[in-house]
Amino acid sequence: MMELTPRIIEELIENKQYARLRSILNEENAVDISNIFSDISEELLPIAFRLLSKELAAEIFVEMESEQQQVLIKSFSDTELKNVINELYDDDMVDIIEEMPANVVKRILANANSQTRASINELLKYASDSAGGIMTTEYVRLQPTMTVEQAFERIRRVGVDKETIYNCYVTDEEKKLLGVVSVKDMLLSDYDRPVEQIMETNVIYANTTEDKESVANKIKNYGFLALPVVDLESRLVGIVTYDDAIDVISSESGEDMQIMAAITPSDAPYLKRSAISIYKSRIPWLLLLMISATFTGLIISSFESALAASVALTAFIPMLMDTGGNSGSQSSVTIIRGLSLGEIGFGDIFRVIWKEIRVSVLCAVTLAAAGFVKIVLVDMMLIKTSSLTLDKDSFLVAAVVCITLAVTVIVAKFIGCTLPIIARKIGFDPAVMASPFITTIVDAISLLLYFLFAWTIIPGL
Amino acid sequence: MMELTPRIIEELIENKQYARLRSILNEENAVDISNIFSDISEELLPIAFRLLSKELAAEIFVEMESEQQQVLIKSFSDTELKNVINELYDDDMVDIIEEMPANVVKRILANANSQTRASINELLKYASDSAGGIMTTEYVRLQPTMTVEQAFERIRRVGVDKETIYNCYVTDEEKKLLGVVSVKDMLLSDYDRPVEQIMETNVIYANTTEDKESVANKIKNYGFLALPVVDLESRLVGIVTYDDAIDVISSESGEDMQIMAAITPSDAPYLKRSAISIYKSRIPWLLLLMISATFTGLIISSFESALAASVALTAFIPMLMDTGGNSGSQSSVTIIRGLSLGEIGFGDIFRVIWKEIRVSVLCAVTLAAAGFVKIVLVDMMLIKTSSLTLDKDSFLVAAVVCITLAVTVIVAKFIGCTLPIIARKIGFDPAVMASPFITTIVDAISLLLYFLFAWTIIPGL
Repeated sequence: MMELTPRIIEELIENKQYARLRSILNEENAVDISNIFSDISEELLPIAFRLLSKELAAEIFVEMESEQQQVLIKSFSDTELKNVINELYDDDMVDIIEEMPANVVKRILANANSQTRASINELLKYASDSAGGIMTTEYVRLQPTMTVEQAFERIRRVGVDKETIYNCYVTDEEKKLLGVVSVKDMLLSDYDRPVEQIMETNVIYANTTEDKESVANKIKNYGFLALPVVDLESRLVGIVTYDDAIDVISSESGEDMQIMAAITPSDAPYLKRSAISIYKSRIPWLLLLMISATFTGLIISSFESALAASVALTAFIPMLMDTGGNSGSQSSVTIIRGLSLGEIGFGDIFRVIWKEIRVSVLCAVTLAAAGFVKIVLVDMMLIKTSSLTLDKDSFLVAAVVCITLAVTVIVAKFIGCTLPIIARKIGFDPAVMASPFITTIVDAISLLLYFLFAWTIIPGL
Repeated sequence: MMELTPRIIEELIENKQYARLRSILNEENAVDISNIFSDISEELLPIAFRLLSKELAAEIFVEMESEQQQVLIKSFSDTELKNVINELYDDDMVDIIEEMPANVVKRILANANSQTRASINELLKYASDSAGGIMTTEYVRLQPTMTVEQAFERIRRVGVDKETIYNCYVTDEEKKLLGVVSVKDMLLSDYDRPVEQIMETNVIYANTTEDKESVANKIKNYGFLALPVVDLESRLVGIVTYDDAIDVISSESGEDMQIMAAITPSDAPYLKRSAISIYKSRIPWLLLLMISATFTGLIISSFESALAASVALTAFIPMLMDTGGNSGSQSSVTIIRGLSLGEIGFGDIFRVIWKEIRVSVLCAVTLAAAGFVKIVLVDMMLIKTSSLTLDKDSFLVAAVVCITLAVTVIVAKFIGCTLPIIARKIGFDPAVMASPFITTIVDAISLLLYFLFAWTIIPGL
């Protein structure tokens, strides 16, 4: 089979070979087509899109970038728009609407049927990072007294529009959640048993306001296909499916990584983003961190006389700063990861601090000892240009460096483990408290300690 | 309902209230019990475990940490071990075996039935980070001429032992993959249609040797419940299910984060790890990075005379190093993320470099301009202790700092975007090329540039 490329599609359109293109497109997978469509010119895109079958068109539409969705919606007639809207799952529709300008949203809602409009409006009530914001209202609901046979009849009748049919939810008349039953359990059971006899009654669920990361962790940890979402009165209002959980886990860890590297997070693929957009997501943080480095400059200026008296001290500044920064970010990244997996909570803060203190003392002693040996062997004996030799003054400098190193590592790990937990507690994203900010704080502290110890230990400074 | 805790279980065992504990345990979810069991003392664990039903015991066993699994296996009679082994899915069994010492593996294989032993030996052939290494051989296979009704009969007969029944795979007599059909499609179709009429024939699959990250990305991007795995002769040999994909995505991003923060990655929950084990995963990198900072110290020592002549130069070293490091890690983290999502490949290296050059020039100009304004306003005019005043020499220092800043940012971003791509190409994990290593390299380069520019621009240095 020939590999389909954007160029081939454009050529077929330009040569008006619509029938051929239609048969090629309707053979392909929706995700693959949406990737190819993302590189087609804006004028030809609506033409290609019109060649798709109704179901495929909706599947592809939902996978496309927001800008392209807008181009298409503008080119759609009202009938075409209706077709797409009514084929889409309601949670996907809500995700699309959240990215659209107000006039487009108005047109979408005007063309949705009353049931779709109602469920869109319902879902738009919830914060987009909550269980309510990512759930779908399209699930299969069963009555407890139905037999398996009746349940399958119901699935055959209503299943085509549901996001998953494999987990069905059993409720009473007030929609209170009684249990969950899987198609597997039903297929493997006698067809005349009532579902209440085979359903799982110890149901794990989420509340509508629960954070989406916590919902995704539940789906991951329990290995569920879908998690039911209930409101304050324990009524079933929707479900979150495993594919949403995968998206949340993947994009949250991507966001964390970007924030940790001092980048405003973006989900857009790197190669599709403009240089200006990438610049905008990076420059504010670089500026902020550059300005905050004023403090380290200030500290060094204040100790000018000490540095002039012993230039050897200057040579160790980068090593002290880097080791402090690395020690701190080791702790902060570990704790941020634990927080986002739900393994660590605010209640664990003292256990975390106690563990980090033990780890940091071990690291501090090892590094100080290794540092001392390295200074004596390399800087004093090996490197002839170094201002350090095997005399008492040089040993005092080595002592100052190693004591500062040890104390900095302990302080850095303490800051690195506490700041993220405190940030989460007061409602900030813990990832902000990662490497660059920890480094800036630890830089200033390590320099202050350095000059303090130098003053105390080296006579005549 | 009372919240179940490790303490309650231990008390019930000590008071010999086995019947009560049995009924409590068999009400709970396997994942929850395995979490609680992880805090029970080693002597009482086997007693608690024996109270579980056969199915629940297997489900819980697979969720437990490797050390606890060993404790249990040691306490098992051969019959108990047989029960657990034969209830487990073969891919889970292989994961467990890979963590066990040889004598335990021998005992497990001796107690497995011949079919289980054959599929374990088959799966052990594949690298644990390949599609073959994470797949299961327990899937439902159908013949193309079967009707939907016959397919459901087959599922009811063989489905209980399969990891998923919701995607069924249609093969010819040689096990060549012909198509995939979902239970949903079958439930919604006429029961007397042959599956070959409703199956999807354009099947997306993985090869046995394909990297597990690539397999997980396929499942994520296509939203699949499971992905079929075929051998070199296109014969179906297994499937990878969505829950394995979630685990891969979550643990790969966790690994990347840890490697980026200079930590040897571990999947074990933070609070369950000993201080010594955490220390061991951190100290080698801290030592390595500390030793490599020798170069920065060397560079500073070589320019001692310049620093002695103009102490103001020293004050800007931390700012230059931090900004360079931050710029570089912004690029490297972005590229590492793109590589692991499969958005960027080696073939894109020149597009990436061209984009990063444009971004870095924009950042460099902005930072240099802002840095110059900041030095004039803050260091020259505001801070009285600073050695910089509004004279020509101070402006020359400011010029040196800002030119170095600009060039460093461009160099840092170039290194930050190319190293991870090259690392991937030559078979290393790109994450290793993140922050700490980039920082160490960029530190040395920025210092060299700094002194070079100072020498050229400031007369009499």
